[in-house]
Amino acid sequence: MIKFFGEAEPLSCRTLEEVFAAVSEGEAEFGAVPVENSQAGSINETYDLLLKYRPRIYAEVNLKVSHCLIALPDEALEDIERVYSHPQALAQCEEFLRKLGAELIPAYDTAGSVKMIKERNLRGAAAVAGRRAAEIYGMKILAENIQTNPHNYTRFFIISLREPERAPRSKTSIVIRTKNVPGALYRCLEVFAAREINLLKLESRPARDRPWEYLFYLDFEGHKDDPPCREALEALKERTTFLTILGSYPRAEDI
Amino acid sequence: MIKFFGEAEPLSCRTLEEVFAAVSEGEAEFGAVPVENSQAGSINETYDLLLKYRPRIYAEVNLKVSHCLIALPDEALEDIERVYSHPQALAQCEEFLRKLGAELIPAYDTAGSVKMIKERNLRGAAAVAGRRAAEIYGMKILAENIQTNPHNYTRFFIISLREPERAPRSKTSIVIRTKNVPGALYRCLEVFAAREINLLKLESRPARDRPWEYLFYLDFEGHKDDPPCREALEALKERTTFLTILGSYPRAEDI
Repeated sequence: MIKFFGEAEPLSCRTLEEVFAAVSEGEAEFGAVPVENSQAGSINETYDLLLKYRPRIYAEVNLKVSHCLIALPDEALEDIERVYSHPQALAQCEEFLRKLGAELIPAYDTAGSVKMIKERNLRGAAAVAGRRAAEIYGMKILAENIQTNPHNYTRFFIISLREPERAPRSKTSIVIRTKNVPGALYRCLEVFAAREINLLKLESRPARDRPWEYLFYLDFEGHKDDPPCREALEALKERTTFLTILGSYPRAEDI
Repeated sequence: MIKFFGEAEPLSCRTLEEVFAAVSEGEAEFGAVPVENSQAGSINETYDLLLKYRPRIYAEVNLKVSHCLIALPDEALEDIERVYSHPQALAQCEEFLRKLGAELIPAYDTAGSVKMIKERNLRGAAAVAGRRAAEIYGMKILAENIQTNPHNYTRFFIISLREPERAPRSKTSIVIRTKNVPGALYRCLEVFAAREINLLKLESRPARDRPWEYLFYLDFEGHKDDPPCREALEALKERTTFLTILGSYPRAEDI
């Protein structure tokens, strides 16, 4: 939120679903939700909630991930026997944590794990979280930049009920369900290839009403109101049993 | 393992990676790993480990998921304040658990949560797990079939260093990396559509060396040695920067 808005009054939510609910009910003007990490992959829950709540995707923001190992102020690295954090953060620091040899305990979030260690005064415990969490809670950073891969970015969506202004460099996210016939997905991608529209991402999620059928989340270059994109979307309607546009929004700078 | 082999000497592993390591090092002849749940979607870690260890996919097995709420023998449903389980199991029982109003605590696995509640004699706590876990640990089933969606199946791969015998109804799983040009994925799917080979699944995973580039995991009907599939794979080599065959194996019966 700080990267995108500079300044904004924060409203903390315990779960991703609470963020979507707060935006949908007008309690918050905007929400920031993680959509993808360049190492661990898509945040499935965000994809599911985008479809459930149908907010507009207002913007995307890329953040470099820099994980720290954080503990009580008088702890040392060799005292740590248990490490708490969100499973994705633990996965991203796999190598460092394996060498440390501590027990890994999954928790709801990164900064929340730091807070818990402080509040419960947990000895021999550390959390994987960002530098800011250590500063906020007055805790000690035992190690910095402990993520396995240095090219570690998380992409966030800013969600809102508002439609974003049209940018020179747009991106559009849609969800489709293909007909259950051979070549169905191929025929859907054809509408983009035929118009030289660049596909940026394709993600599958289970359709849920029938085992082993899928919804596809597609990101492509361009704005839904650009003539080639509008034509592609029209053609796509004929080739799908379900199509919804999650939003056209300014594309983040490259990283 | 019981469904597929009838009888087999079990070797328990704490993590999915341990299963892959045990098979790769010959410590176990076969491994059973979850690959996909019809509600929660793909098990990303399994996809990543298939590529890291490169065992053969020997078979696939579909299991119906039936979750129970399990606690100490003298507990009642209204006493439960905290529920432990694997995050996927908690997600699958979302509606029941929301009505229960208990705090949800993510844990490494389902049966392991039952064991932990027993060993630590945890009061006011329950675990989401299968009926068998309650029987093994002598615990009480407070509620049965608590999953939100009745069409809840998990698909497992049996992995091995052995090549499976060729079956009349085969399925092949591959991993590709597309060239970074517009229409690249479309051109890859073309090799299947042109030969009327039915695509059963397409899953993306991050390429990791470059943010926002992807590997695609594809499942299609047929055996890699069937002439149309062999031709499609040959053509695919030209259109990808990376291609590996995870296996051709007997397709599980429909559900």
